[in-house]
Amino acid sequence: MDDDQENLSMLVPFLPQDLLNRLRISSERTGCSAMNLIEKALREFLEGTPRNNAVYLSTPINALVEGLYVENTTMAEIKKHGDFGLGTFNFLDGEMVLLDGNVYQIRSDGNVYQVKDDEKSPFVCVTFFNPDTIDDLENSNNSRGFYDLLNSLIPSENMLYAIRIDGSFIHVKTRVVPRAENYTPLVEATKNQPVFEFHNMRGSLAGFYTPRFMESLNAPGYHMHFLSEDRQHGGHLIDCILGRVRIGIQHVPKLDVGLPVTLDYLTADLTRDVGNDLDKAEH
Amino acid sequence: MDDDQENLSMLVPFLPQDLLNRLRISSERTGCSAMNLIEKALREFLEGTPRNNAVYLSTPINALVEGLYVENTTMAEIKKHGDFGLGTFNFLDGEMVLLDGNVYQIRSDGNVYQVKDDEKSPFVCVTFFNPDTIDDLENSNNSRGFYDLLNSLIPSENMLYAIRIDGSFIHVKTRVVPRAENYTPLVEATKNQPVFEFHNMRGSLAGFYTPRFMESLNAPGYHMHFLSEDRQHGGHLIDCILGRVRIGIQHVPKLDVGLPVTLDYLTADLTRDVGNDLDKAEH
Repeated sequence: MDDDQENLSMLVPFLPQDLLNRLRISSERTGCSAMNLIEKALREFLEGTPRNNAVYLSTPINALVEGLYVENTTMAEIKKHGDFGLGTFNFLDGEMVLLDGNVYQIRSDGNVYQVKDDEKSPFVCVTFFNPDTIDDLENSNNSRGFYDLLNSLIPSENMLYAIRIDGSFIHVKTRVVPRAENYTPLVEATKNQPVFEFHNMRGSLAGFYTPRFMESLNAPGYHMHFLSEDRQHGGHLIDCILGRVRIGIQHVPKLDVGLPVTLDYLTADLTRDVGNDLDKAEH
Repeated sequence: MDDDQENLSMLVPFLPQDLLNRLRISSERTGCSAMNLIEKALREFLEGTPRNNAVYLSTPINALVEGLYVENTTMAEIKKHGDFGLGTFNFLDGEMVLLDGNVYQIRSDGNVYQVKDDEKSPFVCVTFFNPDTIDDLENSNNSRGFYDLLNSLIPSENMLYAIRIDGSFIHVKTRVVPRAENYTPLVEATKNQPVFEFHNMRGSLAGFYTPRFMESLNAPGYHMHFLSEDRQHGGHLIDCILGRVRIGIQHVPKLDVGLPVTLDYLTADLTRDVGNDLDKAEH
């Protein structure tokens, strides 16, 4: 152990050896003293970097519409961009719900599975959920439709919104996409989807509103996935009747889109207008 | 001074008092020991955050096409997202070139102006330029057109690319958008643009290739702005014949789009397909 190394371990004896080594190297490279670097590091850490308030898409959705169902994006990677959202899995194997940093897979057998960090997805839409408005709703709102209600809560069609609804649901109708071969166009893969109906069930809806002009990148309008409170049921929301719920809405003034660096993506024909296909596949 | 405070200043006596206070508060809030927080801070600091390799748009371009020419986005804000790129200024007042972190304004009088950090823009497209490939070209490439040459350098129509070309130009043809009233549709505002031609001039082209399916967000295909080496001439590139140049191309696997939180943007009608208008306005 040389002198510098010894001094450093006396200065901050509580730091592990690997970090002391890296601190010494950084100090030599930058010409800043170790004390100086620690002070800088601590300032940055305590100030914190403001969280990126963005909707993150791992892929433009038109790639999914054209049948690209296999990408290398892991859940671990996705969690760097959000703790809340929805998506699907490689080979279109079910509906994804991301709630409070936990990933759930609702497969076409109707069952819900916990998802590990090394599993992969061809498409997710996520954000760090931090609602700007919270509304508590009583049953009394049943006179109008669910989507009319959402429209009344969203100030502009040109903004992105993350929407989370927790509580009791009088009726929920979902569908779940079945596993499909890679390269099957989405309209084909979604032709025969099982539909599920639930009555008087507690749970959560996680989803987004996306302006229509972004339809090549994300599902336009409202796109929401349901997960029951007991984590046993769920799916892509078709419609619902709300009971007593809390509705959180986050205004998101930024869209971040990843472009896959895979041969499939780079050579795909993405010139078609996919809006109609997406409408057919989603409902 | 209480006990905790005293212990802390014995532990890391070289840290200034304000930082010790904040460290103590953070430790109380998080339940982590001060030693633990210092270790975490130092790890994050020494690992560093990799630069975001993304094309950043301050606004979806369809807002510009509809005549929204006034936003609050300052150059200082824009420089957080890139040191290279192009755009325009509030009231569509000329063509912007961003090179090596310096912002230039080419106005319709043909003159070039340096731009201060507090000036504002309704639309920019920027990145941190870091080319993946560099090609040195001799005059011999003149047999084929400029855009054919670019096509041969770009591996996929589905990726974003930042393109920088420096050197001598045999011929450059540009146009410069004249200042316009807010809310004038872009096809109107760009009907009578002055055109400039330059011969045997050294300079730089800064621009991007954007996939066609992103046309509601960014100008699709190649979009490049020219700036002469003496910073006296420039404009939106119509066409050119290259001399000896160096071509740098950066593959950019991410698109970040800001959505303005302004009444104009939030209430705009952005439902039109703007592709044709954009083609008309650009050329």
